[in-house]
This record gives sequence, structure tokens and C-alpha cells, in this order.
Amino acid sequence: MRQALRQLDIQTRGKGLTEITRDVAAFVSGEAISTGLLTLFCQHTSASLLIQENADADVQKDLAAFFERIAPEDAALYAHNAEGLDDMPAHIRAALTQVQLSIPVASGAMTLGAWQGIYIFEHRRAPHRRAVILHLLGE
Amino acid sequence: MRQALRQLDIQTRGKGLTEITRDVAAFVSGEAISTGLLTLFCQHTSASLLIQENADADVQKDLAAFFERIAPEDAALYAHNAEGLDDMPAHIRAALTQVQLSIPVASGAMTLGAWQGIYIFEHRRAPHRRAVILHLLGE
Amino acid sequence: MRQALRQLDIQTRGKGLTEITRDVAAFVSGEAISTGLLTLFCQHTSASLLIQENADADVQKDLAAFFERIAPEDAALYAHNAEGLDDMPAHIRAALTQVQLSIPVASGAMTLGAWQGIYIFEHRRAPHRRAVILHLLGE
Repeated sequence: MRQALRQLDIQTRGKGLTEITRDVAAFVSGEAISTGLLTLFCQHTSASLLIQENADADVQKDLAAFFERIAPEDAALYAHNAEGLDDMPAHIRAALTQVQLSIPVASGAMTLGAWQGIYIFEHRRAPHRRAVILHLLGE
Repeated sequence: MRQALRQLDIQTRGKGLTEITRDVAAFVSGEAISTGLLTLFCQHTSASLLIQENADADVQKDLAAFFERIAPEDAALYAHNAEGLDDMPAHIRAALTQVQLSIPVASGAMTLGAWQGIYIFEHRRAPHRRAVILHLLGE
Repeated sequence: MRQALRQLDIQTRGKGLTEITRDVAAFVSGEAISTGLLTLFCQHTSASLLIQENADADVQKDLAAFFERIAPEDAALYAHNAEGLDDMPAHIRAALTQVQLSIPVASGAMTLGAWQGIYIFEHRRAPHRRAVILHLLGE
């Protein structure tokens, strides 16, 4: 049984989903671990991780629109706005999704379903450089 | 330290919660691992995993009603409806819950609280066969 | 490779966030595991775990207010109210956040981002004693 640890740095384009499935899969296949557990950890409170459908781009647009409706950029709603109107909605959207994902590894690859892609979900308007820690354990 | 991997196939009855606690517990006890970490991973983007109260069935009805209110089946709200009106709400409800759960194992059993049950949360109207990967690591 | 298991008992003050970062960090540093995976598991269905910004207290107030709006204490909305008006909203809020978190460990410490704190999110009005299981695996 052994472990591997890597930091993935992702450049986002502002609000929305950036797929990282290939980057994560490359890390896993490079480690030559047949069976194990992969954990992704996003080191931020205004960006998060999401597994979603990777087939139709409309899913991503509808998801983004949903989070705009549920946690709108409305100054009247929040006391915390130090970094702008998108600041507090970003924290709420991160709380509603998650900053960590663990995925079993079998036959040297993540056990993702046929339609599942891994995304970093940027909640700030401006592009950001986001760090995701990858931890792999297995043999 | 060793690992065990199994695919659990669950037949859902359409929208709502299906408890899988017993199936998962049977896998754990069968592996004779005293201390470890169990991970469940749902291979879908329109069904998810949830730990909830297993005592009063009203909790499940109220939960389902909440998710209908927050992400309603309303054609005006979504661009993605390739598979019907319940398609995009299903993706949103999966995003708001999670497709992965990790639970420590102690004394050969999951460390669930007294009122916690593990559920697969079907978000589509039609019954589906859902795959949940179980990964257990420990000794 | 070895494991450590501990139960953390946290006294909450009723609804809101209680930071547990220090308690968890103390457990990790006490185990002298350099590289590994830490898992926190909350044994309740009306309290949950959250990673959020630990700098501005307004973030916590705004988060609490958001969850009051999205899952209000409104008797007309819920069938399940055996333990009071805050009972069912508590289950919904726990479902929207999570009861489990896994965090990679590097150089003997959790790989939390600069602004990330770990919180237990109490969803009941009354203070409760909450159990969080900590599982650490590594070497």
C-alpha cells in the first residue's frame, strides 16, 4: 500500500464550471496504482468541486443559472461584501456543493460513471488560479 | 492493511429515497475489517447519496417536497430537457446533495449515528437501476 | 501505513457554526502521521460539517440567514415536526451541506487553504452535544 500527493493548479475563467477530469485521470494513471481511493480537496471557500454530466453544455448553463437564482448577487441580502457583490454568494454556493470528493480507483482508473465529469466550480466573477490537492492511496 | 471493492446495484422506484444501509452493512461485515474507511460512490448525475433520519417516513416526504420546491419541474427555467421535464431538476438536486460518502469503520461496523440511515436519492420520475461502488480499506 | 480513530465531542450553542479546526489539528499533529488522509464524520442528521472562511464573522451570519430563508421554520411546509418547528428545517439543511469531510494530510498537517476553517453547523435551536468521528490513515 502506498500514497501519492500532488497539487493541481487550475486557471478558471470566472463564474462557471471548468472540467478537470483529464488532469485528474492523468495523475491517477501515472501512479500505476491498480486499486485504491482518490481524494480531491479544493483549498478555497469561493470555488468548489462538482461531479456532473459532461455531455450537454446546457447542463452547465442551467446549473449556473440555478445558483444565481438561489443565492443572488443582491447587496440587501448580505452583510459580508468586502470583496464585492459576488463575494457572499460565492461562499453560499461553495457551502451548497462541496470542496472535497473521494472516488474509488479500480483497474488503475477512477470508477466514474459513463456521463460523469469532474469540475471545479468557480463562484467569483473574476478568473482565479485555484489549487486542488490530489491524494491517492492504494496498491 | 487491505482493500475490498464491490459494485452494489440498486433498483429505485422513481423519485425519492431508497434505503441501502443493510446492503452496505452486509458488505462491511463480510469483509472482516475491524478498523478502516468505507467509501460509497454513486456513478450517476441524476441520483445521489444521502444520510438521513431513518425513523420517521415523513422526513423523507418533506425532503422530497423541499427539493421539488427549490428545483421545480418548470420548462421555463431550463435549456436542458433532452430527457424530459425531470431531467435538469435531477442534475440540480444531485449537485445539492452528493455522489460520494466516506464513513469510518470501527469494531467491524460503520460508525453511523443512532438515527442515521444511508439512502440513494433517485431524482428521475422513472425507476432506474443505479450503481454504487463500495470501497473498503483497513485491517 | 497505520490508522488512528478518535471521537470528538463538541458542545454547540444552538443554531450556527462552531469552529473545530484546532481540535482536529491537535488530533492530527498528535498522531505523527506525515502523509495521509483524514476523514471527519458527523453522527447526526440535524447538524453537519462545513469548511468555510474563518476570517470575517459576517460570513457565518450571512450563511445562517441564507439557510433560514431557503428552509424556513414554517409549520405549513412540513409534516415532520415531532421535535418542534426547527426539526425538519434542520434535516434539510444537513442534507444541503454534508456530514462527512475528507482532507489530505501533508507534512503532518491538514492541507487546508489559507482561509479555510472546519465548522460543525448546528441546525437545532437548542445547544446539543455532537459527536464527530475522526479517522486518520497514513504513515
